[in-house]
Amino acid sequence: MVNHRGPEFKALLERVVSRLKRAFRTENDLVILTASGTGGLEAAVVNQLSAGDPVLSVSIGAFGDRFAKIAMRYGADVTKLDVEWGRAAEPDAVGEALAAMAAAGRGARAVLLTHNETSTGVTNPLEQLASVVRDAAPDALLIVDAISALGAVPFESDAWGLDVVVTGSQKSWMVPPGLAMISVSPRGWAAAERATMPRFYFDLAAHRDSLAKGETPWTPAVGICFALDVALEMLEAEGYERIFARHTACGAATRAGLEALGIELFADPRHASDTVTAARLPAGVEWSALNRELRGRGLVLAGGQGKLTGQIFRVGHLGAVTVDEILAALEILEQAGEALRLPTRRGGAAAAASAAADGRGRTAVPSA
Amino acid sequence: MVNHRGPEFKALLERVVSRLKRAFRTENDLVILTASGTGGLEAAVVNQLSAGDPVLSVSIGAFGDRFAKIAMRYGADVTKLDVEWGRAAEPDAVGEALAAMAAAGRGARAVLLTHNETSTGVTNPLEQLASVVRDAAPDALLIVDAISALGAVPFESDAWGLDVVVTGSQKSWMVPPGLAMISVSPRGWAAAERATMPRFYFDLAAHRDSLAKGETPWTPAVGICFALDVALEMLEAEGYERIFARHTACGAATRAGLEALGIELFADPRHASDTVTAARLPAGVEWSALNRELRGRGLVLAGGQGKLTGQIFRVGHLGAVTVDEILAALEILEQAGEALRLPTRRGGAAAAASAAADGRGRTAVPSA
Repeated sequence: MVNHRGPEFKALLERVVSRLKRAFRTENDLVILTASGTGGLEAAVVNQLSAGDPVLSVSIGAFGDRFAKIAMRYGADVTKLDVEWGRAAEPDAVGEALAAMAAAGRGARAVLLTHNETSTGVTNPLEQLASVVRDAAPDALLIVDAISALGAVPFESDAWGLDVVVTGSQKSWMVPPGLAMISVSPRGWAAAERATMPRFYFDLAAHRDSLAKGETPWTPAVGICFALDVALEMLEAEGYERIFARHTACGAATRAGLEALGIELFADPRHASDTVTAARLPAGVEWSALNRELRGRGLVLAGGQGKLTGQIFRVGHLGAVTVDEILAALEILEQAGEALRLPTRRGGAAAAASAAADGRGRTAVPSA
Repeated sequence: MVNHRGPEFKALLERVVSRLKRAFRTENDLVILTASGTGGLEAAVVNQLSAGDPVLSVSIGAFGDRFAKIAMRYGADVTKLDVEWGRAAEPDAVGEALAAMAAAGRGARAVLLTHNETSTGVTNPLEQLASVVRDAAPDALLIVDAISALGAVPFESDAWGLDVVVTGSQKSWMVPPGLAMISVSPRGWAAAERATMPRFYFDLAAHRDSLAKGETPWTPAVGICFALDVALEMLEAEGYERIFARHTACGAATRAGLEALGIELFADPRHASDTVTAARLPAGVEWSALNRELRGRGLVLAGGQGKLTGQIFRVGHLGAVTVDEILAALEILEQAGEALRLPTRRGGAAAAASAAADGRGRTAVPSA
């Protein structure tokens, strides 16, 4: 460890922040919290709002629900737009919800949006959603949970007019969990000055002020900052355009391979995520049994969350992942299906996945 | 990384929690938050209290002030007992403050205490303070910042009747920062059910409930948990009695060595900390100049914090530290004093320090 109030950490922190700002595509301030992504979402809420503030929360799954719950816990007047799990939010529906709030004299001070919903494997059309918010409620703050896709798929904080954007170290950044990274627009800082929800540890202005001295207000997770510095160097060496192409290829390969196995995809195909794929559990198997079989063969997938527990399973393809690894995972799924005598098909997954990936993203992730 | 909702992490988490409970000397529940110590202090406040609750905050330095500030930020009715920096809290003064609050019809619902104040190098007589609180305000919760000494000096959560105890991974636990560990007594849980300060990320009941399934409610800093597991194994291999003796020896050696150099100690000698020593800056030198000289010779010390900035410097001797390392640090201080032509003395520090350590704690810290 180095002294987190010394010159080595100052240089590290400043380097990491400027690299993250390039990845966020923002000129806004960006601060780093020692917390998981959920702590970042809480910070995004409590710094921007006061109890009683009308807020539109657009939820397409478990993480959208969590975002709304945080705002409610701190006393926001939350209107929830619940989208059927597996589908993306419709820009028109968001515009109508905002218009209805304004008509009722409760014009939204903020809109909470999820970019990529890990629980359902759906990526929202964030650019379109942000645009409709700007038209329907020009003064509303755009607060975005970008935890599970930013860095892996195209994202434009400033061009899309996003005020507060949150991500987490263990996602596309490929390092251990423990850091949340948040950008705040000038409009966001102005709102923070008026916002009266209580905060101390998550006080973003304190983080901004300390960062001006190359520090954090409280002791940071120094080790994860070191890892993040190396990871950001690797990401920039690979180049974000190539990273996006690799995730596109991995997403396409996963979906095509699962379908070739006869497994039904869960998400609306127009909005299927390129960082995580959700699929319905094949008939006749419990997740616990399939999971045991897969783990025994060296493959760790995730089950369903919340109301999707026992109905779906999820394949993560975020971060340092290649199409070859997806092919290996599909092979194990095929073997597990056979071992468990599931109604899955044999033999076609690899070819279908390779064809869908179309030769993209097969190479290894460059090392630092 | 392992899946933090899988069997490997479950086993790790349960092992770390039971080892920590042995170190805390408690049968109470203990949970692990992904946050620095300050986040742990915030959790200790917001789970136990409601806005308007009368609280006695006993502050002997910068971290005590921070603890009070957190409670005030969330709306507690804080009575502050400010002790002169460099001194410990007097049990009688705490008893009188509690009696005065009760007489004014504002009986304290909680008392915030710092065990070891890093900013001044003072260890409070926690057992005596806790005892006087129990007598003067039997229903008040005892909430303790034990961040910078628990694990390194004798500590008895249950025998001293402490309700909420907070520590942080980067202190005696010898691992990187990023985890706060908190124990909560049954009385603390009962208070949490009534407490209305808002919390989500730091909701300790959510952590307790997840722990019953071998999980954390939000993604934990998995890497630091792995490190903590190894460190706790090392600490138990060495044995806490031997660890306490090693810190006693290092504290005594540091104080005797600094005095032999002609440097004035800052803390009341009756309550000098065995994990950090504060000393007055020698006449005629700025901290920045001394720090530069020391760093150039490979020694990283800390300056003063808050109102002690520019007046003191601090020598940390917490964690994997031995008397031999203290002797090496004193040698560098001696050389730096000579290089900067400070009014420090030559030649006696090592002998004085060795004599004070009395042969204890000279051996290396055992490895895992």
